[in-house]
Amino acid sequence: MFLEKINNPEDVKKLTRDELYLLVDEAREALIKKVSHHGGHNGPNLGVVEMTVALHYVFQSPVDQFIFDVSHQSYVHKMLTGRAKAFLDETHYDDVSGYTNPKESPHDLFTVGHTSTSLSLANGVAKARDLKKETNNVIAIIGDGSISGGLAYEGLNNISELGTNTIVIVNDNDQSIAENHGGIYENLRLLRETKGKAKDNFFKSLGFHYEYLEEGNNLDALIELFQAVKDTKSPVVLHIHTIKGKGFAFAEENREKFHAGGPFSLETGEYISTGNQLSYNQLTTEYLLEKMAKDSSVVAVNAGTPMLLFSAEQRAKAGKQFVDVGIAEEQAATMIAGLAKNGVKPVWAVYSTFMQRSYDQISHDLALNNLPGTILVYGASVNGMNDESHLGIFDIPFLSHIPNLVYLAPTTKEEYLEMLDWSIEQMNHPVAIRVPVGGVKSEEVIKELKHPDILSNQISQMGADVAIFGIGNFYHLAKEVANKLEEISQLKPTLINPRVISQLDKGVLEELKKAHRLVVTLEDGILEGGYGQTIASYYGDSGMRVQNYGLDKAFHDRYTASELMEENGLTVETICQKILTNFPAVD
Amino acid sequence: MFLEKINNPEDVKKLTRDELYLLVDEAREALIKKVSHHGGHNGPNLGVVEMTVALHYVFQSPVDQFIFDVSHQSYVHKMLTGRAKAFLDETHYDDVSGYTNPKESPHDLFTVGHTSTSLSLANGVAKARDLKKETNNVIAIIGDGSISGGLAYEGLNNISELGTNTIVIVNDNDQSIAENHGGIYENLRLLRETKGKAKDNFFKSLGFHYEYLEEGNNLDALIELFQAVKDTKSPVVLHIHTIKGKGFAFAEENREKFHAGGPFSLETGEYISTGNQLSYNQLTTEYLLEKMAKDSSVVAVNAGTPMLLFSAEQRAKAGKQFVDVGIAEEQAATMIAGLAKNGVKPVWAVYSTFMQRSYDQISHDLALNNLPGTILVYGASVNGMNDESHLGIFDIPFLSHIPNLVYLAPTTKEEYLEMLDWSIEQMNHPVAIRVPVGGVKSEEVIKELKHPDILSNQISQMGADVAIFGIGNFYHLAKEVANKLEEISQLKPTLINPRVISQLDKGVLEELKKAHRLVVTLEDGILEGGYGQTIASYYGDSGMRVQNYGLDKAFHDRYTASELMEENGLTVETICQKILTNFPAVD
Repeated sequence: MFLEKINNPEDVKKLTRDELYLLVDEAREALIKKVSHHGGHNGPNLGVVEMTVALHYVFQSPVDQFIFDVSHQSYVHKMLTGRAKAFLDETHYDDVSGYTNPKESPHDLFTVGHTSTSLSLANGVAKARDLKKETNNVIAIIGDGSISGGLAYEGLNNISELGTNTIVIVNDNDQSIAENHGGIYENLRLLRETKGKAKDNFFKSLGFHYEYLEEGNNLDALIELFQAVKDTKSPVVLHIHTIKGKGFAFAEENREKFHAGGPFSLETGEYISTGNQLSYNQLTTEYLLEKMAKDSSVVAVNAGTPMLLFSAEQRAKAGKQFVDVGIAEEQAATMIAGLAKNGVKPVWAVYSTFMQRSYDQISHDLALNNLPGTILVYGASVNGMNDESHLGIFDIPFLSHIPNLVYLAPTTKEEYLEMLDWSIEQMNHPVAIRVPVGGVKSEEVIKELKHPDILSNQISQMGADVAIFGIGNFYHLAKEVANKLEEISQLKPTLINPRVISQLDKGVLEELKKAHRLVVTLEDGILEGGYGQTIASYYGDSGMRVQNYGLDKAFHDRYTASELMEENGLTVETICQKILTNFPAVD
Repeated sequence: MFLEKINNPEDVKKLTRDELYLLVDEAREALIKKVSHHGGHNGPNLGVVEMTVALHYVFQSPVDQFIFDVSHQSYVHKMLTGRAKAFLDETHYDDVSGYTNPKESPHDLFTVGHTSTSLSLANGVAKARDLKKETNNVIAIIGDGSISGGLAYEGLNNISELGTNTIVIVNDNDQSIAENHGGIYENLRLLRETKGKAKDNFFKSLGFHYEYLEEGNNLDALIELFQAVKDTKSPVVLHIHTIKGKGFAFAEENREKFHAGGPFSLETGEYISTGNQLSYNQLTTEYLLEKMAKDSSVVAVNAGTPMLLFSAEQRAKAGKQFVDVGIAEEQAATMIAGLAKNGVKPVWAVYSTFMQRSYDQISHDLALNNLPGTILVYGASVNGMNDESHLGIFDIPFLSHIPNLVYLAPTTKEEYLEMLDWSIEQMNHPVAIRVPVGGVKSEEVIKELKHPDILSNQISQMGADVAIFGIGNFYHLAKEVANKLEEISQLKPTLINPRVISQLDKGVLEELKKAHRLVVTLEDGILEGGYGQTIASYYGDSGMRVQNYGLDKAFHDRYTASELMEENGLTVETICQKILTNFPAVD
């Protein structure tokens, strides 16, 4: 076996052409085996096995600098840069992350997880190289799906402007996570159909030398192409047509399903089910399909992750009332401002981590104009994605301080669906809703929310001495804490579901002053700049004591949620102990 | 005079062609007179007088919907939509804002001040129109300078994808605020030189029908062009060549100087000086030019507002060590990550309000990778720009909670320059520095900062009972408060300059517990999600009382800083009174 003997790219260069072909087969086999056991990004990596082997055969990493966009297609790159064991030995599968990672290897330049950044990163790397009067190649590898992001266009413009060596590899498998959307994809299609000869070439219009390769999974052709442009003195785009999921029939046939996922059966191509409990995502899908059927002015918007809301079949059913803008979160945020302005009812579904990309569009376009668009914030929890590049724990700090925006944190199915319906129908404000994460919770007693209620705190249990605010997902933790306190002390805590996290319910906060000496807040996100601190500030010099609980400010990586919560004192026991230090008498 | 009789666009349609020409002259004359007295955006408006008259003559606003990018070129549009008096009568100059504003007129769809948003807004407006089965024209007017923003590209892609009526007018005067930068501008130049015939047409590559007009200040030609595309069933780009500053010699000759500015002399074309006191901007310019001359690895980066740092002459002097990426803040943030990764020392100068556009790039590219780039944050103050679309008061909440990022708030010239030099030389973290706003303050006693000092709070006066934290610009207010308190009470306050606002100096905070019962924070920005609240949270249940002072969460518009501060209790008197309520004995 060659792969296990590859300790660095130099070993790749020593192989004969025949041996390189065997290496390709071994790498693909290792890929399929690992992702079927372990989960991961299937299609993107299977499509670039030949490309990655050719890159390391022709170029000299790390002197020549590779920058992988999103970097979810860097598995084979990892195999060839001293990390093969993490793909060959099951006991070492977790040695590497699913993205490039400078902590793992000098061959990985950046920690990357969001799309469309590689060209601007490469532009900076190349500019620094020029200032240092060095002459290495800078190579950015970007998929067609990432080309829809505005930052990719800004990067292309500036690479062209710099005018020196930068090789942009557009890995075109005619597929984003789902299907592509946007005018640029018409041009890519035309270029594929004409083998790169179409007039009005997008890349040439931006000043690039351009080469097209139809056989993007042909090792010889790739090596020849890379050798031809190596050490170019000016910017080049290599438009390379590859097959997503290449070499694994199920992945080639169902490219959306096999973009990424958990473990699956090599025999049936079915993902191994992890139980089929009802999720808030399913509830949202069902609610929206029904709502849109009843009201033709409701339009669902998404930016390149449509499966978050709808399957391909459901998207077809939604028809013109569903818009996928491609991977372009800024467009989604600003477009819903335009939709709301012109009298329809937009609902944008987005992951907390990707929503970060539209901070200014949410502030300047949606909130400044105070337009009634609805944003559904997914995965906003310590229990969301746990890669350092995909954390969903920063949205309360970066959204809550935006004027006019109402940010809601429902705690149960009933509350969530009422808030969602209220948000879509109200015409006064932009509203973001933190879609609960985890198993669906239902209220013991179903009570109908009235509109004014939605913007006020709910006192679900009135006690004395200590009041506990449980925000969204953490309401249930707050309840456990309250129950435990009653059990172990003479305290009968007040329990509060604030519902809205972008403003304080001063009526409730004043009311608490009468019979409470401690207010506790629990939020499912980082503490700094969050909700709890606004309460601590409100009580400032009133004599009321406050304890804020949440996560510390850090890019936590591949953590175990329960462990991270424990480290941050987010357990029933620790919280109870700390609360009781304020009540020595009743301890 | 025709202009004063124009009460709405219908009145424009009634004019003969000769009368329209006179209207153009009257509008241009009114423009020049107002901006010379009042200040404003000169060049952008002078260039589109004919275009705006033609638009209102051919299309039917507000049924047909105009969306102006940035909207700083909407003055003539305002004249023709019932607001002529604000340009003809000096006593009414302040009746209108410098941007489109729905509160002023139904002919203004959006409040806009940041660039590159018009196409995505138009895409949303057009999609809503289609869902409602209406048939009006949607027209976006965008300058060549704004085309460099990634959001404009995302908008073009999605307008093309929607495939219905949207008319994109590219107002090409071959000039951004300063000169243009990026590959797209090569294409625009080729298209101008070939009268739109060049191959590899950027707009056609994205699927647009394309028309070029060389004579963009020719009223007849404009009317003919607009009539030809009115009610088109598919997306069109009208590439119209105009002359920035048209009709005012000084503005045509010096397009950068006359993009915008304060009152100027019609005779000499010189801006009327408002005193020439030394500014922190000048200090920065001098420091950087000297630093770059000494160290060839220092590179200054800016996104389309180069005059913030350097004049045209100084940019030439900086040479390859200065990069203007065009109006593309995301590119700037991600590029400096690439620059820092490859071993040079980037310094990015950006206005607080525009930095909002790169929140995710600062977090995901720069901070997650913990790369030592320096960000100079300009205009971050209640005393910065005061249009609701250009506020610089949100940066503490949206930057301070980003992990790894060090955010510094210097209080004097000496402190600022030392922090700046430290930041450029250190290799451990991304660092943002809040460039002080207002007249340059100097320390009585010059003391050299040592590196560890920079990340610690400075106790500039140790007293007892009450400790006052003055952040950055507000340190001097804190000092006034401390002095006043000593004068009117028996209190001797402790005065603290925190220096760093992205982390707490727990040593100092613990020290204060010994002899203080109240901690006061003053910050030059909104309170919510800010620095003071992290201190309130830190003291939580310790018994220490805290008062946080700052601005309320709102899009304040065209305010007077002193009035807004007074409304928010930010005066020496009010703060002293509130502090003393905690010390009845000494009152």
